[in-house]
Amino acid sequence: MYSFRNDYSEGAHPKILELLMKTSLEQNTGYGLDKHSERAAMLIKKVMKHEDVDIHFIPGGTQTNMLTISSFLKPYQCVIAADTGHINVHETGAIEATGHKVYTVPHVDGKLTSEGIRRALDWHADEHMVQPGMVYISDTTELGTVYTKAELSAISRLCREKGLLLFLDGARLASALTSTMNDLELSDIAELTDVFYIGGTKNGALFGEALVLVKDELKKDFRYSIKHRGAMLAKGFSAGIQFEALFDGDIYFELGEHANRLAEKLKKALEAEGVEFYATPCSNQLFPIVSGACVEALEKKYEFNIERVLGEDRYAIRFVTSWATQESAVDGLIKYFKTINR
Amino acid sequence: MYSFRNDYSEGAHPKILELLMKTSLEQNTGYGLDKHSERAAMLIKKVMKHEDVDIHFIPGGTQTNMLTISSFLKPYQCVIAADTGHINVHETGAIEATGHKVYTVPHVDGKLTSEGIRRALDWHADEHMVQPGMVYISDTTELGTVYTKAELSAISRLCREKGLLLFLDGARLASALTSTMNDLELSDIAELTDVFYIGGTKNGALFGEALVLVKDELKKDFRYSIKHRGAMLAKGFSAGIQFEALFDGDIYFELGEHANRLAEKLKKALEAEGVEFYATPCSNQLFPIVSGACVEALEKKYEFNIERVLGEDRYAIRFVTSWATQESAVDGLIKYFKTINR
Amino acid sequence: MYSFRNDYSEGAHPKILELLMKTSLEQNTGYGLDKHSERAAMLIKKVMKHEDVDIHFIPGGTQTNMLTISSFLKPYQCVIAADTGHINVHETGAIEATGHKVYTVPHVDGKLTSEGIRRALDWHADEHMVQPGMVYISDTTELGTVYTKAELSAISRLCREKGLLLFLDGARLASALTSTMNDLELSDIAELTDVFYIGGTKNGALFGEALVLVKDELKKDFRYSIKHRGAMLAKGFSAGIQFEALFDGDIYFELGEHANRLAEKLKKALEAEGVEFYATPCSNQLFPIVSGACVEALEKKYEFNIERVLGEDRYAIRFVTSWATQESAVDGLIKYFKTINR
Amino acid sequence: MYSFRNDYSEGAHPKILELLMKTSLEQNTGYGLDKHSERAAMLIKKVMKHEDVDIHFIPGGTQTNMLTISSFLKPYQCVIAADTGHINVHETGAIEATGHKVYTVPHVDGKLTSEGIRRALDWHADEHMVQPGMVYISDTTELGTVYTKAELSAISRLCREKGLLLFLDGARLASALTSTMNDLELSDIAELTDVFYIGGTKNGALFGEALVLVKDELKKDFRYSIKHRGAMLAKGFSAGIQFEALFDGDIYFELGEHANRLAEKLKKALEAEGVEFYATPCSNQLFPIVSGACVEALEKKYEFNIERVLGEDRYAIRFVTSWATQESAVDGLIKYFKTINR
Repeated sequence: MYSFRNDYSEGAHPKILELLMKTSLEQNTGYGLDKHSERAAMLIKKVMKHEDVDIHFIPGGTQTNMLTISSFLKPYQCVIAADTGHINVHETGAIEATGHKVYTVPHVDGKLTSEGIRRALDWHADEHMVQPGMVYISDTTELGTVYTKAELSAISRLCREKGLLLFLDGARLASALTSTMNDLELSDIAELTDVFYIGGTKNGALFGEALVLVKDELKKDFRYSIKHRGAMLAKGFSAGIQFEALFDGDIYFELGEHANRLAEKLKKALEAEGVEFYATPCSNQLFPIVSGACVEALEKKYEFNIERVLGEDRYAIRFVTSWATQESAVDGLIKYFKTINR
Repeated sequence: MYSFRNDYSEGAHPKILELLMKTSLEQNTGYGLDKHSERAAMLIKKVMKHEDVDIHFIPGGTQTNMLTISSFLKPYQCVIAADTGHINVHETGAIEATGHKVYTVPHVDGKLTSEGIRRALDWHADEHMVQPGMVYISDTTELGTVYTKAELSAISRLCREKGLLLFLDGARLASALTSTMNDLELSDIAELTDVFYIGGTKNGALFGEALVLVKDELKKDFRYSIKHRGAMLAKGFSAGIQFEALFDGDIYFELGEHANRLAEKLKKALEAEGVEFYATPCSNQLFPIVSGACVEALEKKYEFNIERVLGEDRYAIRFVTSWATQESAVDGLIKYFKTINR
Repeated sequence: MYSFRNDYSEGAHPKILELLMKTSLEQNTGYGLDKHSERAAMLIKKVMKHEDVDIHFIPGGTQTNMLTISSFLKPYQCVIAADTGHINVHETGAIEATGHKVYTVPHVDGKLTSEGIRRALDWHADEHMVQPGMVYISDTTELGTVYTKAELSAISRLCREKGLLLFLDGARLASALTSTMNDLELSDIAELTDVFYIGGTKNGALFGEALVLVKDELKKDFRYSIKHRGAMLAKGFSAGIQFEALFDGDIYFELGEHANRLAEKLKKALEAEGVEFYATPCSNQLFPIVSGACVEALEKKYEFNIERVLGEDRYAIRFVTSWATQESAVDGLIKYFKTINR
Repeated sequence: MYSFRNDYSEGAHPKILELLMKTSLEQNTGYGLDKHSERAAMLIKKVMKHEDVDIHFIPGGTQTNMLTISSFLKPYQCVIAADTGHINVHETGAIEATGHKVYTVPHVDGKLTSEGIRRALDWHADEHMVQPGMVYISDTTELGTVYTKAELSAISRLCREKGLLLFLDGARLASALTSTMNDLELSDIAELTDVFYIGGTKNGALFGEALVLVKDELKKDFRYSIKHRGAMLAKGFSAGIQFEALFDGDIYFELGEHANRLAEKLKKALEAEGVEFYATPCSNQLFPIVSGACVEALEKKYEFNIERVLGEDRYAIRFVTSWATQESAVDGLIKYFKTINR
């Protein structure tokens, strides 16, 4: 049984484990104030071509979302997200647990649009309703789609015009930035958002997300917020070391490319089989629409998720590739699919 | 510069890194539902001689405290702690952030006493005051002391009589259970408390605490709570694997013993030098009281914390040993101390 | 300028002010433990034909919703509501401020349906999503519609089957229970829900809502919750006295009938003019659909809200009548409407 | 049985009820945006000699404290209070429910001192501890004492130097400002604090506290906060009208003087009987220390609280006078006390 269920089934990339091993008996300062975290941040800033940002390493994704949103909103403010947004669907109310409403608008191919945000703003008239204070987007989105530079710029402009913070969840940023449909660089994201994160967990790390505070007003006393939300690891260096390994050279992007290349191969094969997709396939998450019989046949040999039951015997399923996916496994899946897709 | 500042300066014990390495390309189920977490829980239950507990692996200590306290208290309830308690002093209000007051009583040698709890209960008369719902203790305590079986039993009895949950923070449980002053076993703790945790971070793990739910009423739907508080790692197996390594054999306790043995050696040498202690020295944290000149001389060669400025040129400083402390370093410190203590 | 904007523009009904005046120099026990609150509760229980409920008087509606929902949900649970629900739209995130998601489903004529609830339950699969713990409905709804006994029974059955609490917001319960389309009695509501409230503010009181705890498990220590959420007035008797006045005789229902009768008169006149309604008109809130020119003409002489801009020059406006509305004012509006509706 | 238990046993002052009666059939704008609230604010500003403050009327005291503290602190900040502070003792954790720690220092005659605040600041070193963000004081204090201008100025200077907000709880401000030991005016309080409130409930209103936002940065969007915390009454004018009555002329201060004068009379009589006090008696709350036999004898004819059991047969009890206390009742108590104090 091979799993295409997600991009966090395997442990860590060998380069990461190697560096953890090598540094294991060093004495490092605790709580993220160590030299590895410092160097990792320096390496990331260089790729980002922005020196004046603050970078903090946070253990997990939900935690990073919760921490970021709760730190920067006023108590009576809400965050605007697509209805498919991770914070809306798959975080067990973690955002609301910090006191904030997630106001959703219908997604367009997994994405939030500036029109959607505008309608959300129009709807919120006065103090009897929550006040929108932040926009949350993910790149890649929860449906594996990516934002173009034009789309992100439009959202960014609107946010700045309306005084909204723009937060980009980059749990799968490696896959986004190496997508064939991508025209953004890390430096654009630093330019266009106020805060974002560079996901490690879903791109080869054991755990860890690099949270980048771009806007100056967000930086002060942020370590209080990290500790306050339980997101400060005693051995913070263990996250720093992992990002040091990922950004010492191009490994971070190479891992994304690997995942995308295999997904692309799978996509083409499925398309050749006449398969349609629930959302534009362009990153390491694919959402082919298949029949119930096909789901059943696939389940005999593979692990994957059923994303949506569409009715009329149509199921949007999810295949995910990762830094660790073996090409032979993808080839096997393609071959098997051809046999069952009749 | 050698650091005696804490027990989380180094990375992970070789056995742990080895197992992480060995299992790294396995495909494991996410979110803690993997076979390593299952096996780790099974191994722990065996040592604990309690099969009917639930064990969850949580990334960090503050997070575990926050999660546990917020999950089991009613909104209007408070937790009783010693004024030295970690949740009161060193968690940046993480407990209060979940809505709960930490009601403190003065510690006795770092410990909470059943008399202290009783006074706290007497003080809380009616619905104009928070309702005590839980007692929080740490073993070892924040001052390195340990609870005796008699003390823990007295607290446990009182809690059961009064309908209070008893929660034991075992961030340093390895050191506690291997202290020369300890007469508790892991099975006693499972017997006497309702929920407790077995600390990994401070005893050789990269991160991770094993939270043990003993009382049946606490078990249902707890995974919702974990996710809801941002404490569920995608690669939950990375914590499970570490505890598997620690409890596959006696490693967990051996690491605690190592730390304690070196602390004991240091303690005896300091006592021989006429040094007094701020709290009974019996685990891997020592609080010798030294002069300002001594502090200055020590700072030239060692890292450590100043716990309390006591006045009249007396400083309670903290030396911490760990699984990774080298005996030669302790010997060096002893030798150096003799030269400066005149 | 006469206002049909809402049912809380005027002060209190003369009977209420009279009793406040008469009792003003009595010495009463504070915090709702007085004899007036006790008598008010007794009178309400009699009408409700349920003796075994607990009744608490809470100052305001948003507060009552926030208090109720936050007291009875577990931290990781959400409340299900219609998208038009007051808690979703018009409480500035007060529910989320207590940590809970409001999960919404599309309304049907302002109402939540058992089918809607069922779909919400199907959607929430596991611990990565919030767990539905409560259903929130309002009677009358935010669109002035009422639940039939069959509808409420179906919802109640489903909630009991699925272990969901059922909470009915009765801010406008007087109007609901005296609607021509109503077939519920107060006793049915006590039978079919777990907790509900009988609104005072919108039916002649200066302030105050009578919160009725029906389900036994909800009763214990509820006064702690009230105080904890800032909802316990020192002079709690001032709310008790108002409900004593409202339920000493049939005043409570008479005030609802008065409001409904005038709304019915207005509705018939508007229907005769060919006006359509945005939601079934059957209580003291009417939502006629009128043209922009009509809105403009009305605004010269009356205060009212525009509920929805429907497009194509259609506006759903809201007229509200109350215990204090003068029949002559309604007659005047009808007359004026005829002159502008051409 | 006459009650000296508190200053909120009776309803409202006749002038207040009269105005409520007189305005009852007016149509007023909801939610505090009415002309009575506006006029009340104007009248208060005139007495305060500060035009540039914002005034909001909030139903209750605990609610006002909760609202104020939670609106102006960052999530990781705490409020510093005396250990006797109302927010620490008697609000059932309402402040912590909004996420903030109440850090306490020992009171001095019921008061917080600038030295105490300074020690609190020294203690909070880094991001592992909450960050002090606000100082909370009450005038009169919970022990009936008052701040002198020198004391308040010292606290104010320190707060401004250290960037702490200063919040004064004036639930009993009428009694404070008319105390014989007072040298503050309302204008001084506006000068020296950042936010404070003028209590209505304990000085003749049915309910209501006038919250005064002095510091400019606190004013923006505060109505969102009020609604968000459930503190915005639909009939907000019912609070505005009460403050209009209290500040139309000198009634507010006259009621405080009445309460103080009767307390002074009682104090002198008790002193003449050799009674000592638990805190300096100078306002409408007196804390005489009496024997157990005396307590028992008093309980036969009067209602009052036992504040503290001091041991050795000494009890600090609390007598409270109010705007409604009858002089004959005080005379009766004095006479009775002489008969039992032997």
